[in-house]
Amino acid sequence: MMPEVDARMRLSPGHHNENLYAAIEHLLSSGGKRVRPTVTLLTAGMLGADHDRAVTLAAAIEMLHTASLVHDDLIDGALLRRGIPTLNAQWTTGATVLTGDYVFARAAHLASQTGSLAVMDLFARTLMTIVNGEINQLFRTPRGDIRQDYFERIYAKTASLFELATTGAALLCDSEPDLVEKMRAFGYNIGVAFQIVDDVLDFAGDQRRVGKPLASDLRQGLITLPTLCYLESTPNERELYGLLDEQRLEEADLGRLIEAIRSSDAIDRALEEAEGFAVMGEELLSGMPATPQKAALADLARYVVRRTL
Amino acid sequence: MMPEVDARMRLSPGHHNENLYAAIEHLLSSGGKRVRPTVTLLTAGMLGADHDRAVTLAAAIEMLHTASLVHDDLIDGALLRRGIPTLNAQWTTGATVLTGDYVFARAAHLASQTGSLAVMDLFARTLMTIVNGEINQLFRTPRGDIRQDYFERIYAKTASLFELATTGAALLCDSEPDLVEKMRAFGYNIGVAFQIVDDVLDFAGDQRRVGKPLASDLRQGLITLPTLCYLESTPNERELYGLLDEQRLEEADLGRLIEAIRSSDAIDRALEEAEGFAVMGEELLSGMPATPQKAALADLARYVVRRTL
Repeated sequence: MMPEVDARMRLSPGHHNENLYAAIEHLLSSGGKRVRPTVTLLTAGMLGADHDRAVTLAAAIEMLHTASLVHDDLIDGALLRRGIPTLNAQWTTGATVLTGDYVFARAAHLASQTGSLAVMDLFARTLMTIVNGEINQLFRTPRGDIRQDYFERIYAKTASLFELATTGAALLCDSEPDLVEKMRAFGYNIGVAFQIVDDVLDFAGDQRRVGKPLASDLRQGLITLPTLCYLESTPNERELYGLLDEQRLEEADLGRLIEAIRSSDAIDRALEEAEGFAVMGEELLSGMPATPQKAALADLARYVVRRTL
Repeated sequence: MMPEVDARMRLSPGHHNENLYAAIEHLLSSGGKRVRPTVTLLTAGMLGADHDRAVTLAAAIEMLHTASLVHDDLIDGALLRRGIPTLNAQWTTGATVLTGDYVFARAAHLASQTGSLAVMDLFARTLMTIVNGEINQLFRTPRGDIRQDYFERIYAKTASLFELATTGAALLCDSEPDLVEKMRAFGYNIGVAFQIVDDVLDFAGDQRRVGKPLASDLRQGLITLPTLCYLESTPNERELYGLLDEQRLEEADLGRLIEAIRSSDAIDRALEEAEGFAVMGEELLSGMPATPQKAALADLARYVVRRTL
């Protein structure tokens, strides 16, 4: 399925600056799991959407994801992604900003080519949600409850785009509102599960997670679910909240905290929460048309929490 | 008319990061001529488009313009725009990139709210044209004929967005293809005239053009129409092309060249070309519904070449 989506994301040479063309080829060739397009195509297939429009939607969603990674890596100063040099590692800030902008524009164009105003509207709102979430994270705007903050953050960062994939697919077939809502909830649940597992792998993953040190979020003062579970079960460590928030934790204390989290049951409890979301996702599939795509979506919900990379 | 457009561009407080909200208020309060929304609303009014949808389109276009200025100022390191500090003068690169992204997203959302897929499609394609033009400029990709390069550049930079304003307005009323094409050509011609005058004011403008030194384009090695007209009429200066292109012109030589251009008839000849485009634009209005908006658009075509700021 993915070659079709990849082909739709590619630019035709000749109409664009050649450096831009090369940059986008580089971004697409670096691969990635293509989880979002897979979710899009399976949902669309299960609900009987037009295949060609579904491919366009899948390409729009993966382009949107790609564009936000280009700007994220620039902002974080990340030099590698999936083991391959980032654009900002090779180019100026200006060229990187503009390439990201172009990929956003291309994503918006693909979204408009689905021919659905409802999809287009949701696409633009999702982009606003994602960027607003990144701005919240950048300014570390204090928002009260730390657990609520975490779930709001991973909604903006990941689950909103999974929602776009599943809701968008449902909208392509002019589904009834309750079916659209069920598919939205399905996307939400597997998106949240996916991000929790990402956050667990940041603590428990092995060397294959190239280009990131262990507990890279915590090192930036960012509390994800494993840390949250650890702190919730060890109230005497709670003073760490403030220290983490202000990034005033000494390197030695940070190392000790990371080890404490890794050897506690916080990792397992975070994974259990992810499992809970995946199960809720799977349950939402009951009553959907019994198709090979439905079975594949159920597999995917399980895969999301069992993957190791 | 503009208060309605401004109101539609504003965010409602509460749903967004407060820093983002403040940044967008800052961007909107710094004013600007609002030429693009004016062209949009007048064209829509002349053709009888729904007023509310026209306001939404006008807001989408001005937001797109605003977003591209945010990223441009960041890339150029500009500290002032219209006498007011730019975002990048006050914020980090990350916060500026993300604010620009958010404004792009908001513009796309407004475009989708016009309820016209044709408008949405054109909106996304225009964004690609603008960004591709900026990338061409950044990489100074040699493209052959210097005059053709100039007109391609100002098309991408300015005329494409005027085209979106007039074509978009025509599409809102489901106009016949030949009317849409006429309106596109009208937008193109006044957009080109507008940018040529901007480029002339860069040489001939007075101190009111705050924040930019005289001949700021030429100082960056960028050849605009006044320089082009000067070089075309003084073939013995043509070796300057290469020097300008490689930015190897000494400061003293640059100062001499700027003075030579200012005291030559190149300024007048560039203005005559602008006048020619404005006249072509005005002629395209013949046959349009005799409305106050038609008269105002004709005035605007003339104003575009007579303005001094």
